[in-house]
Amino acid sequence: MKSSRRGDVDPFIVMDVMEDARRLEAAGRHIIHMEVGQPGTPAPEAARAALARSMAAGSLGYTVALGLPELRAGIADLYRRWYGVELDPARVVVTSGSSAAFLLAFTALFEAGDRVGLGEPGYPSYRQILRALSLQPVGIPTRAENRLQPVPEDLAGVEMAGLIVASPGNPTGTMLDHAALEGLIGHCAGRGISFVSDEIYHGLHYDGRAVSALEITDEAYVINSFSKYFSMTGWRVGWMVVPEAHVRKVERLAQNMFICPPHASQIVALAALDCVDELEANRATYAANRALMLEGLPRAGFARIAPPDGAFYVYADVSDLTTDSLGFAREILHEAGVAVTPGLDFDPVRGRQTLRFSYARGTADIVEGLARLQAFMASRREEPRGGIARG
Amino acid sequence: MKSSRRGDVDPFIVMDVMEDARRLEAAGRHIIHMEVGQPGTPAPEAARAALARSMAAGSLGYTVALGLPELRAGIADLYRRWYGVELDPARVVVTSGSSAAFLLAFTALFEAGDRVGLGEPGYPSYRQILRALSLQPVGIPTRAENRLQPVPEDLAGVEMAGLIVASPGNPTGTMLDHAALEGLIGHCAGRGISFVSDEIYHGLHYDGRAVSALEITDEAYVINSFSKYFSMTGWRVGWMVVPEAHVRKVERLAQNMFICPPHASQIVALAALDCVDELEANRATYAANRALMLEGLPRAGFARIAPPDGAFYVYADVSDLTTDSLGFAREILHEAGVAVTPGLDFDPVRGRQTLRFSYARGTADIVEGLARLQAFMASRREEPRGGIARG
Repeated sequence: MKSSRRGDVDPFIVMDVMEDARRLEAAGRHIIHMEVGQPGTPAPEAARAALARSMAAGSLGYTVALGLPELRAGIADLYRRWYGVELDPARVVVTSGSSAAFLLAFTALFEAGDRVGLGEPGYPSYRQILRALSLQPVGIPTRAENRLQPVPEDLAGVEMAGLIVASPGNPTGTMLDHAALEGLIGHCAGRGISFVSDEIYHGLHYDGRAVSALEITDEAYVINSFSKYFSMTGWRVGWMVVPEAHVRKVERLAQNMFICPPHASQIVALAALDCVDELEANRATYAANRALMLEGLPRAGFARIAPPDGAFYVYADVSDLTTDSLGFAREILHEAGVAVTPGLDFDPVRGRQTLRFSYARGTADIVEGLARLQAFMASRREEPRGGIARG
Repeated sequence: MKSSRRGDVDPFIVMDVMEDARRLEAAGRHIIHMEVGQPGTPAPEAARAALARSMAAGSLGYTVALGLPELRAGIADLYRRWYGVELDPARVVVTSGSSAAFLLAFTALFEAGDRVGLGEPGYPSYRQILRALSLQPVGIPTRAENRLQPVPEDLAGVEMAGLIVASPGNPTGTMLDHAALEGLIGHCAGRGISFVSDEIYHGLHYDGRAVSALEITDEAYVINSFSKYFSMTGWRVGWMVVPEAHVRKVERLAQNMFICPPHASQIVALAALDCVDELEANRATYAANRALMLEGLPRAGFARIAPPDGAFYVYADVSDLTTDSLGFAREILHEAGVAVTPGLDFDPVRGRQTLRFSYARGTADIVEGLARLQAFMASRREEPRGGIARG
């Protein structure tokens, strides 16, 4: 049976590390997980209780394709609470996680063969989803002096039908301020480039808050999720805000491609919008973890890091330590007992010399992980074993 | 902001009927719903209880992309129970409903521009999902003498890279027997056409059981869901069985396009596999409803129906009554207070002269709906108001 070329997406390199970690744990080794991209906390307690009540009361059949009207209204209200933006709930599309939002956005916006830009380093699935939809990902290398985010001069002369930007970014955690985001949006508007703003890490900031594209324009696709700030990864529920003129088109696509987002997850999400105390307590944990990371990683020898404005990641340039981040991550896993993510999934070229550290888990794990990294790196400095020959 | 041509999918015509029904109900009118394509029953009680326990115990984060290993094993075991087929759980891909399975199958199998055949009448979203993925749907008109299912001679000379077949079908409920399914699979194998078998209504049969493509070949994509027999529409969990050589490719696509199916829904699905008594009681209700329909619809005047082998639909040829099924459905809704589905969504041409009646709801509703249809049709015969001029 034949299969398609467009389905030939790249494997996740981090999966090798995770499988390796799983084998070590199965053999009795204790591993600290700094490779994970999800909270260790469950959905808020009151939100789970809301679902327990709904499961007892009703049948949880299909909802309408765009999602429960009260959830769409609640999400619109979040834009008032978080950004002071008045948003018509009719423009809110509830989705089966941000994953479904990307599938909807890319099919609603682009034709087969279209080129779509994305900053490197960036979330690897952008590239793979684009390929699966017969679109051409166009990697745009970013620079450290621009917080590893694209700037208009990076886009000059690059032909593309759309641009995806993430702030805070994954793997970097860096954010675009209002002027930087406005500059990108203005550049794209001037060239007829559709602007897709991935705001999945909004809510998880530690100094200033992140800026939404909706504070600048209504002519963008804004994608977000209940996975990160709302601590609901496995529930697969997110949302997208689209220009008013695109709502009907996206609705028809959603009816056919997804029928509806999971009903149970929508009920949990609706209740989660009100669980501010529990979610802010989670954020306080990340803030404490982040402070530990910013103090402990440089002490271990990982000093060249991107500005960690938000999300729960620190992205480190380790070009002074290795040109083989995958091999280096394996070494850290086996010798220090800490799982970290090599940069290759996020940046196919420069990722050979970067690592991503996540601080999404509990603070005790962060303390222990940093101690292990410091001890490992100290011993490594004493007995240098590095070099490009190591596999 | 531009939008794509490939995103220009057709609206669901039934939505007009549903919105009309909603307005009538909001105005105080009582409506019997024979337009719905989903069970009125909830997920099995023990399955919901399993989720309540899991929600209290753990965080329900991401699962692996192909689904919980125990759920994949349970699904493989279902093939033993239902068909006597030994299936390697490694070939089972848990999906976010059959919707996600179609998105995965079509991207794994076909290139942009490929032609994919589907029998008419058929599930309308096949056509729209194909278009959204830049594929060309090729409608294959079926004949009443073939139970409105495609046969190899219908495919002769039709160029296509793949064929989608559904048995039992929607809107017809008709099934392909072993020889008929084998004939189609053999024809496709001989021509290098990828075979996709939509088995979403399996389990809902009333005389003989449905035949799975896996009883005939391992070289097919078989798609199923927990939505219908397992009464879990809104949970958005289904599965796909793929040839062994395709597992890795589909896994990578699933990792990127969906991350994972909803964790909570997977827990409900796993427990639902064991809820045989409750599910068979649901099926007994459908069987009773079906018997009432087969007696009552002809008495009302809907006598030209497709063989209703499975699912919970009766598809009626009403060419003796109208050439405007949408107008006729509106008339039935407003005058009889019964919502039914015009055939246009399923068959863009001949659907002007067909209606789909669903018997998925409780038996009391079926009794009342049939009484209303009989009274309405009797009065219509006495005072003929039909004709092509009616809008």
